[in-house]
Amino acid sequence: MPVPTIRWEDGRVIIIDQTRLPLEEVYIPIENIHQMWEAIKKLRIRGAPAIGIAGAFGVYLGIKDYFGKDLDGFLEAFEQSCRYIESSRPTAVNLFWATAELRKTVKDTEEKKTEKLKEIILKRCIRMIDEDNEVCLTIGKNGEKLIKDGYTLLTHCNAGGLATAMYGTALSPMFLARQNGKNIHVYVDETRPLLQGARITTWELLHAGIKTTLITDNMAATVLKNKNVDMIIVGADRIAMNGDTANKIGTLMLGVLAKEFGVPLYVAAPISTFDPEAETGDDIPIEERDREEVIHFGERQTAPDDVDVYNPAFDVTPAEYITGIITERGIISKPFEDNIQKTLSESTR
Amino acid sequence: MPVPTIRWEDGRVIIIDQTRLPLEEVYIPIENIHQMWEAIKKLRIRGAPAIGIAGAFGVYLGIKDYFGKDLDGFLEAFEQSCRYIESSRPTAVNLFWATAELRKTVKDTEEKKTEKLKEIILKRCIRMIDEDNEVCLTIGKNGEKLIKDGYTLLTHCNAGGLATAMYGTALSPMFLARQNGKNIHVYVDETRPLLQGARITTWELLHAGIKTTLITDNMAATVLKNKNVDMIIVGADRIAMNGDTANKIGTLMLGVLAKEFGVPLYVAAPISTFDPEAETGDDIPIEERDREEVIHFGERQTAPDDVDVYNPAFDVTPAEYITGIITERGIISKPFEDNIQKTLSESTR
Repeated sequence: MPVPTIRWEDGRVIIIDQTRLPLEEVYIPIENIHQMWEAIKKLRIRGAPAIGIAGAFGVYLGIKDYFGKDLDGFLEAFEQSCRYIESSRPTAVNLFWATAELRKTVKDTEEKKTEKLKEIILKRCIRMIDEDNEVCLTIGKNGEKLIKDGYTLLTHCNAGGLATAMYGTALSPMFLARQNGKNIHVYVDETRPLLQGARITTWELLHAGIKTTLITDNMAATVLKNKNVDMIIVGADRIAMNGDTANKIGTLMLGVLAKEFGVPLYVAAPISTFDPEAETGDDIPIEERDREEVIHFGERQTAPDDVDVYNPAFDVTPAEYITGIITERGIISKPFEDNIQKTLSESTR
Repeated sequence: MPVPTIRWEDGRVIIIDQTRLPLEEVYIPIENIHQMWEAIKKLRIRGAPAIGIAGAFGVYLGIKDYFGKDLDGFLEAFEQSCRYIESSRPTAVNLFWATAELRKTVKDTEEKKTEKLKEIILKRCIRMIDEDNEVCLTIGKNGEKLIKDGYTLLTHCNAGGLATAMYGTALSPMFLARQNGKNIHVYVDETRPLLQGARITTWELLHAGIKTTLITDNMAATVLKNKNVDMIIVGADRIAMNGDTANKIGTLMLGVLAKEFGVPLYVAAPISTFDPEAETGDDIPIEERDREEVIHFGERQTAPDDVDVYNPAFDVTPAEYITGIITERGIISKPFEDNIQKTLSESTR
């Protein structure tokens, strides 16, 4: 069984500290909004869906100790908490999805008592975990149909249970395939600079009893050319309305290689990952992260002090390289522009 | 000025220990064949041409203390030294080139005295350094013509001065362009697992006053797509007679990306890198290295103990992805099969 990434327990949030995996399985309590801001910023909790849920709980922690009874003051504190949490990773669309959900919850209720409002907000946060579990399980069921017994797959970064509340997006179909008795073999890109593939994805796949082979990112080309890979499945951080997909740096490399070597590339992501404001990938801002991530490794410095560094956290894979998008409402195939519109306008699952 | 990678001084070989760059510039004495075997195996000295020269000196160190005067015993010891050194990196073609050169030297001389033979072998080793410097400078001059003022380039691994005796292959044209007053900007792939790009190439380029930006390997796709890269230059470990090129793992990725994004990809390598026994890339054996290189980084373990690892040191880039091959006899362009034949059959410079 997958481990819960985030849970509400005894008045605080408990997360597994992903920066310490796979050697240490450490659960840390998050008791205030500042700790949550830091946990998101430092990637102790990461992965698009998990960031959204964590952000929502962060907002709740920001207002839970508001002692006043005046509604205006409370709403002001709530709004400040939302903005503060949004600043932890300002290009993460799920953070903004989560704060928008909470704002809507607060706006839609007729409740005026601050203590009751706190309860309503907390309930919405907890429901996000349940919704995420349901969405990820459905993504798993939809994606699992693509995987045949004996398949060799490749994935990048971590779009596993630890990127969501529990079941994962890209890995959910693999977990389900294994549960259904299919033998599969997954190559995992280590995913520099922060090695989410090496540290987290291999750990999750091995726990699920799946044959797992770790490679460095630059080995993907030779693996895709020579190792009979049947399918690539990756997650997504944000998807534009034409299907262009922002995901962990290196996904564009896989897209180009997939096209060249004739390997289908699927993106697995919840409907909430689509950004109606982004017509194409050009509308997606790319987070650039600290140079230290590239020139250090653990405690060791691996490049000269005076070298410039370019460290984009994501790249955009144009829709042309993507075979299909596995969502909780089914697999979206081409032409993406029409089919994404159609899927998004379906009432609800 | 580039640093000498390997030199003969006071009866011993002095090499710069490349595993300790860029933070420490440590020169270590190599006094016997076993130390040289270890230095090659552990990549203290690395890069196709440098390995060849180091291997030759290793053979010399293996026989320099042979005290007998009997020719047969000496030749037996010499042959054993050759085979032992060849086993340090058994897929490195330059090692075999170097031992073949020494065998030819021994076979061609009429000298029968063991002490004199030792001198002849040592002289041949020292001449290899001079020849390499001349070859690399000529590669630099030939390649420099392709580089215009203001160019942005990208390189992988280290085919710099430290991969040769002093001037490098892929970096030699860049050093010369800079010397000739051209402003260039070079993106360097860090080159996992051993980070030769981050550790060594950036160090060499910065020393030469060249604007240098370090990226992780999986960022090459977005750089090639979005940063107006004019040219990729990489080295080669072995080139088949049809132009298929074995080079550091990740070069195939660059080849596919170069084709997709319309960036010319040049291989820079001495004529000795061509393997007349290899008709195509399929004839080139690929060294697989230790799993520890992938699951450890410095002292820190970064993946679970029980994960499988695939760790090929090289990949083969098919000729179709390569624009031209920069050699000391000029730039070989397509069709490679004819033009490689033609270039190899030119007498000698």
